[in-house]
Amino acid sequence: MEVVSENRCFGGTQGVYRHRSQCCGCDMTFGLFLPGGDRGDRGPATGNSGHGNAERGNSNDGQAPALWYLSGLTCTHENAMVKAGAQKTASRLGVALIFPDTSPRGDGVADDDAYDLGQGAGFYVDATEEPWAANYRMWTYVTEELPGLVFDRFPLDSGRQGITGHSMGGHGALTAAMRLPGRYRSVSAFAPLSHPTESDWGRKQFSAYLGRTDAQEHDSTLLMRDLGFDGPVLIDQGSSDQFLDLLKSSDLAEAMNTRGQEGRFRMQPGYDHSYFFVSTFMDDHLEFHADALRN
Amino acid sequence: MEVVSENRCFGGTQGVYRHRSQCCGCDMTFGLFLPGGDRGDRGPATGNSGHGNAERGNSNDGQAPALWYLSGLTCTHENAMVKAGAQKTASRLGVALIFPDTSPRGDGVADDDAYDLGQGAGFYVDATEEPWAANYRMWTYVTEELPGLVFDRFPLDSGRQGITGHSMGGHGALTAAMRLPGRYRSVSAFAPLSHPTESDWGRKQFSAYLGRTDAQEHDSTLLMRDLGFDGPVLIDQGSSDQFLDLLKSSDLAEAMNTRGQEGRFRMQPGYDHSYFFVSTFMDDHLEFHADALRN
Repeated sequence: MEVVSENRCFGGTQGVYRHRSQCCGCDMTFGLFLPGGDRGDRGPATGNSGHGNAERGNSNDGQAPALWYLSGLTCTHENAMVKAGAQKTASRLGVALIFPDTSPRGDGVADDDAYDLGQGAGFYVDATEEPWAANYRMWTYVTEELPGLVFDRFPLDSGRQGITGHSMGGHGALTAAMRLPGRYRSVSAFAPLSHPTESDWGRKQFSAYLGRTDAQEHDSTLLMRDLGFDGPVLIDQGSSDQFLDLLKSSDLAEAMNTRGQEGRFRMQPGYDHSYFFVSTFMDDHLEFHADALRN
Repeated sequence: MEVVSENRCFGGTQGVYRHRSQCCGCDMTFGLFLPGGDRGDRGPATGNSGHGNAERGNSNDGQAPALWYLSGLTCTHENAMVKAGAQKTASRLGVALIFPDTSPRGDGVADDDAYDLGQGAGFYVDATEEPWAANYRMWTYVTEELPGLVFDRFPLDSGRQGITGHSMGGHGALTAAMRLPGRYRSVSAFAPLSHPTESDWGRKQFSAYLGRTDAQEHDSTLLMRDLGFDGPVLIDQGSSDQFLDLLKSSDLAEAMNTRGQEGRFRMQPGYDHSYFFVSTFMDDHLEFHADALRN
């Protein structure tokens, strides 16, 4: 694993790391924020960029709980890291943040001219169809390979994980949380893509990656109807979101209500789909997860 | 003036606006955050992007104090707007934020291949030399033309202004504050370019834009020695800043101490020159300015 950069930030360390992904068959980059205080002092070096030492095993004490943040279409590991404004409150709460990329990348990796297919649009599924199957295994990457790496290399407590995400990343967060019971204590999402088997954000990609459009195991609304989540759920949705018709988050809200799912679905008047919306409610989500992640 | 975008953000409105600049001879873009609450409700529309109404005059009540944020080399109006994490606390404090661009721009505007000369590197001076003199009038733009526009079009209180900036923008903020006594109640800076007549960030640009390197009227350290600032000053500087030798902020600190300038110069251990540094201390600067900007 290569240290791309490490910047001191709110008393902790905002790092960017690159590693060879076995499941994706390419180099992958991710961001990781280690909070300050006692934990920060045990984390990677916090001086100039690119010279830190992230090669350390876990210690039994001082391990931070970890909140996964899955990003949306066109994003890399970097967007939320620089635009969501999460580090201040994460540092205060002692919560680490993990920012994976949204797809495999590189010259040898299949791509598409559309912004919503191929690189930057992995949709958190394991592709079975050509030309995607060789690299597009983001489900395995985000739920198996990257957790294995970060819990081995950083002082993080794998017993205390939460997961969140924005748009396509909200879809990834919700499906992972419901399909892996016991893995995450809490799940939240900002304007999640919520009913992809009934949306053009979903049918198109499931058809390309999976060869079928009825992938109910990757549909949060259907999973909420069938399984639900054994823990608290928090969803924020802007009422002026320009993608409401594609996200179909109201279908998820209805499924939550029908099921009696523990949690809240909040419609936020006047907010759109941008990071100005995400950053506005980020602190609420961090407090929500921190409550669930206390020892 | 054209509304490029308006996004609801922390109960207020983060807008981006474009206008024809007379002094720069080109279109210029700036960001403006209007805080929420009573003030936000009187500001531009807060729904979808691009359809708001910023064309309104001042009202006598409900005018927000204004904090200018001048950006550094290579930046546009956008960097601080999306990366500095200022809106949450600005909204709580009821302070508006103005984010000007750092230079004139466009196909007809002179440029240079270097990152530190030409577009993105206006240095907050009025150029007298060719090929720059026709457009590079950022001193006049930031201290005269843009204030005239924003105080006419937005509910801002011109009697309550503060100014801050990062790197080259810290240079702009400090020189404006000292040369325009009575204009700004408070000045702060993040890692300011502090002694440009003695730095390669300064001599090169003053030579190109002004035809001379001894531009003491654009040198914060020299202005601090000669004039000082009639109000509080706050400077933050990271000890691991990769540009310490070019910034020469320690010369400014020495001039502040020698003069007995009201204010603080804080060396922040382990922080570098990035927006991870700026965002970490942004709330301190907002509180500092808000204290000075109270009625």
